Amino acid sequence: MRTDAKHSAPALPPLPLSSKARRTREQPISFLISTALHNPGLINLAAGLVDPLTLPVEECAQITRELFADRARGRAALQYDTTAGLRDLRRELLAHMARLEGVDAGTLGFTAEQIVLTTGSQQALYLVGDALVDPGDIVIAANPSYFVYTGTLSSLGANVMAVPMDEDGMDVEAVATLLAGLEREGKLDRVKLIYCTSYFDNPTGLTLSLDRRKRLLEIVRGYSKRHRILIQEDAAYRELRYDGPALPSIKAMDPENRYTIISNTFSKPFAPGLKLGYTAMPDDLLHAVLQQKGNHDFGSANLTQHIALQALRDGSYTRHVDVLVASYRAKRDAILKALDRYMPKNPGLTWTHPHGGLYVWVTLPERIDASRQSTMFESCIANGVMYVPGEYCFQPDESGKIPRNHLRLSFGQVDPKQIEPGIERLAQVVAQQMSEQSATSTLAL
Amino acid sequence: MRTDAKHSAPALPPLPLSSKARRTREQPISFLISTALHNPGLINLAAGLVDPLTLPVEECAQITRELFADRARGRAALQYDTTAGLRDLRRELLAHMARLEGVDAGTLGFTAEQIVLTTGSQQALYLVGDALVDPGDIVIAANPSYFVYTGTLSSLGANVMAVPMDEDGMDVEAVATLLAGLEREGKLDRVKLIYCTSYFDNPTGLTLSLDRRKRLLEIVRGYSKRHRILIQEDAAYRELRYDGPALPSIKAMDPENRYTIISNTFSKPFAPGLKLGYTAMPDDLLHAVLQQKGNHDFGSANLTQHIALQALRDGSYTRHVDVLVASYRAKRDAILKALDRYMPKNPGLTWTHPHGGLYVWVTLPERIDASRQSTMFESCIANGVMYVPGEYCFQPDESGKIPRNHLRLSFGQVDPKQIEPGIERLAQVVAQQMSEQSATSTLAL
Repeated sequence: MRTDAKHSAPALPPLPLSSKARRTREQPISFLISTALHNPGLINLAAGLVDPLTLPVEECAQITRELFADRARGRAALQYDTTAGLRDLRRELLAHMARLEGVDAGTLGFTAEQIVLTTGSQQALYLVGDALVDPGDIVIAANPSYFVYTGTLSSLGANVMAVPMDEDGMDVEAVATLLAGLEREGKLDRVKLIYCTSYFDNPTGLTLSLDRRKRLLEIVRGYSKRHRILIQEDAAYRELRYDGPALPSIKAMDPENRYTIISNTFSKPFAPGLKLGYTAMPDDLLHAVLQQKGNHDFGSANLTQHIALQALRDGSYTRHVDVLVASYRAKRDAILKALDRYMPKNPGLTWTHPHGGLYVWVTLPERIDASRQSTMFESCIANGVMYVPGEYCFQPDESGKIPRNHLRLSFGQVDPKQIEPGIERLAQVVAQQMSEQSATSTLAL
Repeated sequence: MRTDAKHSAPALPPLPLSSKARRTREQPISFLISTALHNPGLINLAAGLVDPLTLPVEECAQITRELFADRARGRAALQYDTTAGLRDLRRELLAHMARLEGVDAGTLGFTAEQIVLTTGSQQALYLVGDALVDPGDIVIAANPSYFVYTGTLSSLGANVMAVPMDEDGMDVEAVATLLAGLEREGKLDRVKLIYCTSYFDNPTGLTLSLDRRKRLLEIVRGYSKRHRILIQEDAAYRELRYDGPALPSIKAMDPENRYTIISNTFSKPFAPGLKLGYTAMPDDLLHAVLQQKGNHDFGSANLTQHIALQALRDGSYTRHVDVLVASYRAKRDAILKALDRYMPKNPGLTWTHPHGGLYVWVTLPERIDASRQSTMFESCIANGVMYVPGEYCFQPDESGKIPRNHLRLSFGQVDPKQIEPGIERLAQVVAQQMSEQSATSTLAL
């Protein structure tokens, strides 16, 4: 607005936002990014970004050189493609998903025609919600869960109901109990989706065990009575596996492609700048999702799809995953070693030991407040280190309470040399908080 | 679904789609694409694709070579960026928009911070609708209008009310009359948006005159009483101007950035494969749009934004627009010449003479049915030429009727050498239809 006009202009009538816009809350990521920007010296253990040092610059230089040297392919990459995305890439991805499961593509239960390419896997998660969820509908997720998607679901009007999780991932028996209760209350028809990050999840780094995968599918099948309940499996971190077994997906246990959706991405195992995700889903859902996507954008960026295709075909994708796994494994080891070395020893202070992904989840004694508004968060910023307050990852319990004693640490973007000093700074603040809190407790006595 | 499983499996419970999914209709484009695929010999005057021969393959080869040769820039392009998009690109686009208006960027009334980068301009149109429209809200558009967006609006639950258009574009006095009527009925609060393709529109190729631009803004200001009504200006074809004056945008007449949104794209003037659009809008709307986009994808593909930035900076964008304008001008001339030469002479048979864009709009005598279900459409396919039935571009009148005597011809994708034979084939069918219809009329007498 121009200042010269400001004075003469009549009062501005308000903007009539939609109900959806009015119920949409700001993603906490905006606050975290702006804190990082205003404190450039921070060691950032909050950012969900990937490691800049291992981005495939040479690979993409080579791929685009070849792509544009071939005029026909160059033209195809610069033209529109379809809403579902480049067919050749979807075929390659079908083969790739079969390799990840260790099976033949023919036994997966879906074909390249049931795969849709999206603007990151986030868009697929959004579109699935858009196609299924009416305000008031129920989606079940773990506590804690990936906060960007639970925020998205709330914006769609979903009632996100949470079940606990432990070292084996989401507590699927709690899902069964919850569904039984909803059925008794006559609310089963409102349940649309179970959201589950099945591999090295965000924020905990934990993985759903093999037994629980099978059981979750069994539960969903059993409660799909008048309508189907679907499992949205988020496999964003699947290929960043540093040790432990390669588990089959929940999707692979649903060979009729009826109850499960699996979303994957190029962002974590290759490069976020391509902003490309791929999702396999039941055919009837795919139809509805493509109709929505036709309205959203009628197809994601085609050029980056051609780059991804070439990366899969020339082997640079697979080679790059190997590079990333080695690099992130070392960073995972470094962060766990630093936590062990610097964190105060206390039975109420624990953290996860993930076999993959980019996150470690720290649990402090319950009396310690690590939330965005806390002295601890402020002291960390002042001490030059940032984390994601765990509160963002929780749905409130029946009394509206959210635990404030957790933090998510990411070893994705941070420079390997900064991991140890970052954890040292964090541990200093934690130790201080713990001694202050116990002093306060003593005083209160 | 595997056939061996089909027999033993119990009946599949249905998918519980959202109300939005249930009211979303298939975009007609799917049918047109599949018709084209099944008839590879067709001369395709239907496709909204751009000319493959003029796609900037060499330019993009050079740009990506430079981009990935610089490791820091390469890494930046392969990392995540923000939801609003690359700041440097938004700054370049502000300067670019000022050049198009022939003014200094400082007088535009908005800054780079009020520009959002989206997955094509379609995503911006979608997000604006998403942020403003509740089911039952009113959006006013011209009859005919760009059918992908009116379909999107209907999917959002909007009541799309149409006003006529003529050689000077949308009939803005009809907009005033409509608003006055809605106010009398107490429905003014439901009016959210006026949608207007202000330059060389899709489907007619016509442009909103300078006087009507001013008047439309005046009308919208006048009726923005308890809340603001916004103008969504779609300027996708603005830079494809072959002759006639360079008009200022409606946005440029709103120097306080209060009532207008302008959406632009790289798809038409550069390359659809980048799938990149840019939209300037009032600050309060931008806030709501970014919150939605945070949920949709938290940022479009970053790599293609870096490519667009380089194209603007090194001048290849501007040079390419010049190449396109020369090439499409020749194709526009060729299609008009062929229509003149081959179409039957009849006072009821007319077509537009666009000064830019990619489309010519043909009006047949009212008795001729050119719709998708018509003999005429089928005869054209059989005769080796395809057009877009004009019916898709209309909202029904009060009695539910839609005119069926229009067709949209695109000279975008078609090979220059195929324009004349394509129009010849079309004209043969039109002549046959007209003589058959007049024979039928005679018989009926």
